[in-house]
Amino acid sequence: MKQIVILAFVALLAACQTAPVDQPAVISPVDASASASASASESASASEQEAKAPDPLPAHQWLYGSAEASLIMRQTWSTIASYVEAKAAEAPAHGVVLARNSTPADPSFLACEGKPLAAVFDADETLIWNIGATGYFMRKGIGFDPVIWDDWEKTGAGKAVAIPGALEGLERIRAAGVTVIVNTNRENRNAAGTAETLQAAGIGTFAHRSTLFLRGDAPDGSGKDGRREIISENYCVIALVGDQLGDIADPFNDETLSVSGRRALTEAPAIAGLWGNGWFVLPNPIYGPSIRGGFTDIYPPETDWAPSN
Amino acid sequence: MKQIVILAFVALLAACQTAPVDQPAVISPVDASASASASASESASASEQEAKAPDPLPAHQWLYGSAEASLIMRQTWSTIASYVEAKAAEAPAHGVVLARNSTPADPSFLACEGKPLAAVFDADETLIWNIGATGYFMRKGIGFDPVIWDDWEKTGAGKAVAIPGALEGLERIRAAGVTVIVNTNRENRNAAGTAETLQAAGIGTFAHRSTLFLRGDAPDGSGKDGRREIISENYCVIALVGDQLGDIADPFNDETLSVSGRRALTEAPAIAGLWGNGWFVLPNPIYGPSIRGGFTDIYPPETDWAPSN
Repeated sequence: MKQIVILAFVALLAACQTAPVDQPAVISPVDASASASASASESASASEQEAKAPDPLPAHQWLYGSAEASLIMRQTWSTIASYVEAKAAEAPAHGVVLARNSTPADPSFLACEGKPLAAVFDADETLIWNIGATGYFMRKGIGFDPVIWDDWEKTGAGKAVAIPGALEGLERIRAAGVTVIVNTNRENRNAAGTAETLQAAGIGTFAHRSTLFLRGDAPDGSGKDGRREIISENYCVIALVGDQLGDIADPFNDETLSVSGRRALTEAPAIAGLWGNGWFVLPNPIYGPSIRGGFTDIYPPETDWAPSN
Repeated sequence: MKQIVILAFVALLAACQTAPVDQPAVISPVDASASASASASESASASEQEAKAPDPLPAHQWLYGSAEASLIMRQTWSTIASYVEAKAAEAPAHGVVLARNSTPADPSFLACEGKPLAAVFDADETLIWNIGATGYFMRKGIGFDPVIWDDWEKTGAGKAVAIPGALEGLERIRAAGVTVIVNTNRENRNAAGTAETLQAAGIGTFAHRSTLFLRGDAPDGSGKDGRREIISENYCVIALVGDQLGDIADPFNDETLSVSGRRALTEAPAIAGLWGNGWFVLPNPIYGPSIRGGFTDIYPPETDWAPSN
């Protein structure tokens, strides 16, 4: 998670850049200069300055505030629960975890072998919204601070909220006899705080290395395939859910993929049918490896347009 | 649409503000100052200056570039098509257009009365992505210019693209015998350009006031209920699809609603079951009336958090 968040806020800062990259970044230079002149504390650290944005970023307003985003979350969670209920009734032969050394273009999937069924979820912006930390960063005009985020992982319990529809969806999934497992890139030294945060948001009770897996629990860093393998030793995973493709399979985050190449890989015929049927994605337009690309990636040259006069 | 876009870009500018509101707004002051000093054209109009952002905004990168957004679009379009196929086979007694003078909390719906079935879609960021215009605005460092947008409505054909999954979804909907109708807030004086843009993107052929309705076709301005009533004179509308709640029913955009009140209204028991079952929302985190709210709306006080040291 930390690395993802860093990437995200770097992207955010690139967009709302108000100072050279190595200088303190604030969201609004208008308010920033006003509060800087009002502040007597010249010795305050860059990340602590009280520069405030006039409003949250539009993507934050959309994600955390809009009925539209909330409804999309509810629709998706309902779809996930319906899928899991149907699948659990089927006694499937294999799950949806990509087998090691197979690829999205030529996939094979781990067999169920009679193991109990599980559904595996990312935590941040999948089960919970990190509104406490995000609000703090925005109120302070800080893009991102990894030290503060580490503190958030430890102490955020009660200040993160369940995503709309998640609690109802999880209740149906558990009622179908399927174990809910969390696979997050929060640091494993912060397992206790993370479990407390999930519990306080009503997501459930999780035990480290049993139903809660974090960065450091397998040797592949922010990659989640190693942890998915560990989970698959004891469970047949019938659903993978996240806001980033790394929550599904690590090959999607291969850094050599172009923006369009990454998108094309998700459309490989052998796996295209899994989206919405075992592999599920929830919207998060505010951070993560989903957010990348220069002008020609995002607005392809064949769409270039200019006014007629 | 125009009003929606203006609202959106105002929100965007508020977030990435780099100059007082009445001054030309550019995305990146770093690049802006560099290009300003390199530019000999001091007489260029504010909106035409060549200030360039270093990258598209994160929410643009997510929406137009990410595999994640593309997959969510495909998932949703597949859900819409499946719903329409099932509903069309049922010969329903009533549609999903809220009857005049009824409310989301106490709704009644227009009866089908044996009329042919239709599905009604918003155009912008629902059927098509306006990448040509958005890319132009971003490359130029312009937030939004209504004169340029008007030109885009007239001349954008070929520079907007179908949203991922839309073409496959529309093919299934039409194969089920359901008429596809567009209800957009583009200006009705630009009906021809809009129809050309939809056709060039592969969405289909549309006729003004028959299968294409625009702002000005009914007396309620950017409200779409009047046009939904006109459409319902000839069709039983079994699906409403958009990126904004105004694409579903105008009472959701009542300006007296708070951010949380608007969200709560969508959860009224009488209509909560319609989302994903007749009423469908697609993600658009870059503009529109979905994007509003101050700090306490977006990061509610009960989630306030600060680092422990």
